[in-house]
Amino acid sequence: MSGPITKVGYIGLGTMGAGIAGNLVKAGLAVTVWNRTPAKSAGLAARGAAVAGSLEELGRSGCEAIFLNLSDGPAVHEVLLGPGGLAAHLARGTVVIDNSTIGPQEAQQIAAELRGRGIEFLDAPVSGGQAGAAQGTLSIMVGGDEAVFLRGLPLFQAIGKSITHLGPVGMGQACKACNQVAVGCNLLGVCEAAALAKKLGVDPAKLVEVLGGGGAASQQLKNYGAKIFAGDLKPGFAVKLMLKDLGIAQRAADEVALPLEGAALAEKYLRAVAEAGGAELGTQAMSRALEERGKFRFSG
Amino acid sequence: MSGPITKVGYIGLGTMGAGIAGNLVKAGLAVTVWNRTPAKSAGLAARGAAVAGSLEELGRSGCEAIFLNLSDGPAVHEVLLGPGGLAAHLARGTVVIDNSTIGPQEAQQIAAELRGRGIEFLDAPVSGGQAGAAQGTLSIMVGGDEAVFLRGLPLFQAIGKSITHLGPVGMGQACKACNQVAVGCNLLGVCEAAALAKKLGVDPAKLVEVLGGGGAASQQLKNYGAKIFAGDLKPGFAVKLMLKDLGIAQRAADEVALPLEGAALAEKYLRAVAEAGGAELGTQAMSRALEERGKFRFSG
Repeated sequence: MSGPITKVGYIGLGTMGAGIAGNLVKAGLAVTVWNRTPAKSAGLAARGAAVAGSLEELGRSGCEAIFLNLSDGPAVHEVLLGPGGLAAHLARGTVVIDNSTIGPQEAQQIAAELRGRGIEFLDAPVSGGQAGAAQGTLSIMVGGDEAVFLRGLPLFQAIGKSITHLGPVGMGQACKACNQVAVGCNLLGVCEAAALAKKLGVDPAKLVEVLGGGGAASQQLKNYGAKIFAGDLKPGFAVKLMLKDLGIAQRAADEVALPLEGAALAEKYLRAVAEAGGAELGTQAMSRALEERGKFRFSG
Repeated sequence: MSGPITKVGYIGLGTMGAGIAGNLVKAGLAVTVWNRTPAKSAGLAARGAAVAGSLEELGRSGCEAIFLNLSDGPAVHEVLLGPGGLAAHLARGTVVIDNSTIGPQEAQQIAAELRGRGIEFLDAPVSGGQAGAAQGTLSIMVGGDEAVFLRGLPLFQAIGKSITHLGPVGMGQACKACNQVAVGCNLLGVCEAAALAKKLGVDPAKLVEVLGGGGAASQQLKNYGAKIFAGDLKPGFAVKLMLKDLGIAQRAADEVALPLEGAALAEKYLRAVAEAGGAELGTQAMSRALEERGKFRFSG
């Protein structure tokens, strides 16, 4: 542990990762990126990032912290600890910061394996969607040792607005799971209210205004209320990603024998959207599954 | 239709009605009250309201508008149109303003019967709870003829902060039903997230803060998140009232063949609370039904 971190790596340049890595560049850090599909690195290179040709090259580039933003726990484990994985090439004391949403226990297991090699780990899932990633206004839920969290804090401040240290490794993911449970139920509430309003002939603009001013107000209503009535299903957050997150929450709940029926209902409707060809649509497409019950199909 | 309304009546002095009637007095209107249980009129009399000895006396007191705030549609119908009901004693052109939460179709039927006697009707359910009623900061969802709405508007401004005219009679109730569907699902989301957080050991204060700053934010979280963790089940809004409102929403949805599974789930858990002796508790008691599944009982 020395001075402030100035050299960082970023692995996984999807819509979230690309935005976050861009903000690390913007903050004046020396950023080296790697992505399984090399073409995705071009945008970051144009913004001033170095591009590593392999995980080994990234691991040996002297980065003091390496971020990951991958699809699930097995992907994070494989990139770090699988054959040819990053961990073998990292110096002791390097901090791995995982922006992926994975299970709390998966995070704990990965952290334990890295610790055996002298590598630090923070689970740091985010919320705020693509816009938050691009604008550097994410909420970041961090689990890990206090000292390691403090070392990473300036980095988090470069990519997020609200940064919370929730306790030891896994607690960031635990909080994210709770967050997505509430998001799923709130979205369900918006979709059911909108479906009823359509059937009863309530004026959409007035409904959104009235509900937004009282006990029914929610960020999901603010984000998606008007879009649902307008039929605008462009993704702020894709159905397939929310399905993944709700699956993580359900598995975490299963492990502690807690049924989450509301979140399961949200998952059911989102799965119906995905099965009708809407996996890439925004989560507000749940409204279609509610209103049309099996009689819908998304083209393209 | 003449000048501004200066004389009003108020029927139904429960916690909501008493607060609203008090604000009508405070606004300088001549208020006459009537309540089935006469003792409940005493507080309003002390604040300057006249007390009618019967519905007939109230009906003949020259009020230009009469508010109602009763438990359900049949109660509103009976007070207005049952044997010895108010309508027989009202002058033509009197405006009946119903602050009760009843079904949209019930409101339409009552309005039609009153119209036959030359009496105007506005459905004007409110949201904002006991605090909003007392402080005059309610949201009021109004259905009825535009001209009648405009005649009532100064009265609404005396008792509410946000007043929305949603269209013809019944539309206020339709909007309220949608509102309660969203409230129920959002509350379910808060309770499920809190239950998972407890099981996973997430710090309560941090959870409420993090969820409140992102996509999981909701008024229900703001109102009840901390209370759920503190075990504070004092009513902001009683379980029995929410059950009534969700029943109205489900019947309205049934009439248009729309299943509302999320709202039904909220209803199921609230019913479990009521059956365990918690009907008078605040709606946040739903958290107990979720966490303890049949193994709980409220005393007193």
